[in-house]
Amino acid sequence: MIGRLNHVAIVVPDLTAAAALYSGTLGADVSEPLDLPEHGVTTVFVNLPNTKIELLHPLGEGSTIAKFLEKNPSGGMHHVCYEVDDITAARDKMIADGARILGDGEPKIGAHGKPVLFLHPKDFCGTLVELEQV
Amino acid sequence: MIGRLNHVAIVVPDLTAAAALYSGTLGADVSEPLDLPEHGVTTVFVNLPNTKIELLHPLGEGSTIAKFLEKNPSGGMHHVCYEVDDITAARDKMIADGARILGDGEPKIGAHGKPVLFLHPKDFCGTLVELEQV
Repeated sequence: MIGRLNHVAIVVPDLTAAAALYSGTLGADVSEPLDLPEHGVTTVFVNLPNTKIELLHPLGEGSTIAKFLEKNPSGGMHHVCYEVDDITAARDKMIADGARILGDGEPKIGAHGKPVLFLHPKDFCGTLVELEQV
Repeated sequence: MIGRLNHVAIVVPDLTAAAALYSGTLGADVSEPLDLPEHGVTTVFVNLPNTKIELLHPLGEGSTIAKFLEKNPSGGMHHVCYEVDDITAARDKMIADGARILGDGEPKIGAHGKPVLFLHPKDFCGTLVELEQV
């Protein structure tokens, strides 16, 4: 069912420094910062030949990313995102298999403008998993 | 400098259950478990169309993965691996830019039989980064 790894999200305490690290020291192609106020994050995309790294920093009040950063002041890997063809079918399969969907269980429009849902880390080896319909 | 995302490594408390989760619930192509005693891990490869997830479980005494699992009993994301063309040139650039290489700073032969090195998480946004020469 899952297809490509769409991205790995890494929360960072300083987005400018992280972008400079990925573009300078690691020599990758990085985007300009993009504010996504409806998702409570500012993001920089690190474009690799086969997938993306998304560097995330909290934006605004009550960002869930802010709590992650409190617990992990240096930052850290936050989630992986796998692509699916049909988010509703994927959701139904997750529920049938006993996996928990975060929130109200309904797909939401994600940071890329496509339907997404998040799966409970405790059901996926301690890893927060995003599914995105592409 | 960095090229493809070679893999994301996820440490899991139960490799059989994790492989079943990725093959069954997530519907991915997973390999048989492979013991890598010289690296202190047993690994299952999750083959996605564009990259791999490596599910890791401790093997033998003194596995560094065992300590991770003690701190994270449900498992969790352990590292990301970026491909480079020249591991020695990459190492020299990391050092010139002030980033710390784990261990003695010399590339070692990694789990795929290729030269690798690991970068200090504190220098890379709280993320353990492996560089692999391909």
